[in-house]
Amino acid sequence: MTSKIFATIITIGDELLIGQVIDTNSAFIAQKLNLLGITIKQRIAVGDDYNDIWRALDETKKHSQIIIITGGLGPTADDITKPLLCKYFNGEMIVDKETEEHVKHIFSNILKKPLLERNLKQAEVPNVCKVLKNEVGTAPGMLFEQNNILFFSLPGVPHEMKWLMQNKVLAILSEKYNQIHIYHKTLLTAGAGESFIAEKLIDFENKLPSNVKLAYLPNYGMVRLRLSGTSNSKIELEETINSLFLSLNNLLQDIVITTIDETLVENISNLLRNNNKTVSIAESCTGGFIAHQFTKLSGASAIFKGSVVAYSNEIKEGVLLVKNETIKNLGAVSEQVVLEMSKNILIKFKTDYSIAVSGIMGPNGGTEDKPLGTVWIAVASANKTLTRQLSLRFDREKNIEITCNQSLLLLRELIVDKH
Amino acid sequence: MTSKIFATIITIGDELLIGQVIDTNSAFIAQKLNLLGITIKQRIAVGDDYNDIWRALDETKKHSQIIIITGGLGPTADDITKPLLCKYFNGEMIVDKETEEHVKHIFSNILKKPLLERNLKQAEVPNVCKVLKNEVGTAPGMLFEQNNILFFSLPGVPHEMKWLMQNKVLAILSEKYNQIHIYHKTLLTAGAGESFIAEKLIDFENKLPSNVKLAYLPNYGMVRLRLSGTSNSKIELEETINSLFLSLNNLLQDIVITTIDETLVENISNLLRNNNKTVSIAESCTGGFIAHQFTKLSGASAIFKGSVVAYSNEIKEGVLLVKNETIKNLGAVSEQVVLEMSKNILIKFKTDYSIAVSGIMGPNGGTEDKPLGTVWIAVASANKTLTRQLSLRFDREKNIEITCNQSLLLLRELIVDKH
Repeated sequence: MTSKIFATIITIGDELLIGQVIDTNSAFIAQKLNLLGITIKQRIAVGDDYNDIWRALDETKKHSQIIIITGGLGPTADDITKPLLCKYFNGEMIVDKETEEHVKHIFSNILKKPLLERNLKQAEVPNVCKVLKNEVGTAPGMLFEQNNILFFSLPGVPHEMKWLMQNKVLAILSEKYNQIHIYHKTLLTAGAGESFIAEKLIDFENKLPSNVKLAYLPNYGMVRLRLSGTSNSKIELEETINSLFLSLNNLLQDIVITTIDETLVENISNLLRNNNKTVSIAESCTGGFIAHQFTKLSGASAIFKGSVVAYSNEIKEGVLLVKNETIKNLGAVSEQVVLEMSKNILIKFKTDYSIAVSGIMGPNGGTEDKPLGTVWIAVASANKTLTRQLSLRFDREKNIEITCNQSLLLLRELIVDKH
Repeated sequence: MTSKIFATIITIGDELLIGQVIDTNSAFIAQKLNLLGITIKQRIAVGDDYNDIWRALDETKKHSQIIIITGGLGPTADDITKPLLCKYFNGEMIVDKETEEHVKHIFSNILKKPLLERNLKQAEVPNVCKVLKNEVGTAPGMLFEQNNILFFSLPGVPHEMKWLMQNKVLAILSEKYNQIHIYHKTLLTAGAGESFIAEKLIDFENKLPSNVKLAYLPNYGMVRLRLSGTSNSKIELEETINSLFLSLNNLLQDIVITTIDETLVENISNLLRNNNKTVSIAESCTGGFIAHQFTKLSGASAIFKGSVVAYSNEIKEGVLLVKNETIKNLGAVSEQVVLEMSKNILIKFKTDYSIAVSGIMGPNGGTEDKPLGTVWIAVASANKTLTRQLSLRFDREKNIEITCNQSLLLLRELIVDKH
């Protein structure tokens, strides 16, 4: 075993502390560092407060060799990170000529806006840092070093931070810390709870070697399991993990959806793509969310032809050709309605498979007969349909997400033809 | 001015540190505490590591009177928070009878699953805490007190954490700290960058009293501005903020979208609702995302009738009746195609307004003629249409989000009839 390399991520900005912005930067940085075998010790969010930022630097350098700071580099008055870092590392502010040219170029050629004095400030950097040129924005990244600890300062704008991580930071880190190996394998299960799985894995977990960890990542009806280890021998580590992963997969074979690091919708999209099949969707209560899950993936057009969001009954009848009497007799949230929706969209959109959903997502709209959270799902192919009823008890957002996942799981059952 | 009450949020779990899960809990907690006038000093995420959690408690109690800990209370082996807290506060584990009954009830009557030994463990609590009954899950919340500092421990499952915050924690806090007043007002602008706005507000910001802060929350083409202050005089504070807010609004009147705390899609939904108008959508490249923005809001059915995601040209022609020659001559990403889409969906779905979009979201699909990021948007009413072209340069996810926002802004222009 090699000794671990620890990193801390510090995010700066009042907007994070007051909860107006959800911090997705940290997750991205953590994932990337993790792949290099670097262990995240802490993530800290502090406000635009001089003393708090200073203390965060003081405290985290006690336990981490790498500190990644994001945010606080913008052109407005609440951004104080750069002068603070300058003082922290005993430097003086100078103009970085290359950044200055770059900022001028962006304003005159890309943004086509007048350059303000405060924008030019972005070209000022402490003379004690290595400038990491930011080709997708105006605020440069900076690298400081103190007692063999690396401090990276990156802008908080997600796509700029990502670009700098991928094009600058990771290269510097992987050159410095290339001796450790980390290896993960993940699988995704559906239909069993965390406790049930944990019960099945008691022996397995007890026998795990000390350099291997099993993590449970539950997500409403699905649990992802991640087996990860670190070692200085790449081959040995991969052999150990691969063999353990095989056992894990065997123990859970009844509930495993995929053994690679893909999401449920990626898994289904790949299944469809590999079989040259297409899907269409008729959504009521999920209102476009299921279609978005397919179409946010690059290359979706090969398997997804389109969908109808039939939010009103008028559209269910007029566009999806659900019979008026079906809705009148059984209600819009019924097995028969989703069956008609799934069959009609399949024909109308000429696809191999279809999904249809109708339900009551809340917070209003429940009746005694059909309480809040009642959902009907149907999936169809040319010669088969499957339906399922859900009784959900979460908030609107979560109900939509779970309905989507359950629809995808039901479609998967139809595709792999378990029945 | 009263002295500030500081809180720190500690989230526990390896899944947060490795970036597999995005931390949305902290944002929720921060927002709620903020409304009580409590200032968030730090947010810290640590792994399932005994020493790291212990140190986080030691460090944060130096500067915060309230510490909210989430996560680490589940039934699986990597959860160590409860025994740690028991030791930290010098307690002993005992069975809480009420929680035990509650766990049994949930398993036999709601989940209808066999109760495992490890589930019953959830009823064990340190004898030095006040148990906060969790009516929506099995892991109870806990409150510890040390030197007048409050430590709340809550489960990490979002809907359980939210329930305990809203039903237990906030009541305890607002009773203890009822002397401070905080007051916010926010407005949303579109069409001007952060620097441009900051330039306009130099004088305004220089004259702000010391108990009032202005925050910039930029989001690709839109900037939300938040004016907030604290004081021990409620009336005085509200008068100060209201008067400053009026000036702010006047300074920025050309770009202000809304002066209440609502999102762009909430603003448009309300505009439609107040005028008894409806909207339909024909989406290509955004693939259901715009429809989802409307339908994730409760009560959407009053204003949103439905949409068609026409991802393939076949659906654009067959369902949305775009002329074959239009696509052949001008391409699917063209002004004429979105115009036809917007007019046809308006008629087909019988709505007052419609949105249509078609574009190339990436990472593939660009041509010399129509580079990656080319998007056409049209919005229509019975007697008017507006179109706009975008040239985006972000990743797929961000391009979809920006296209959605720009479509909503264009629809808003049509509704308020600026032209």
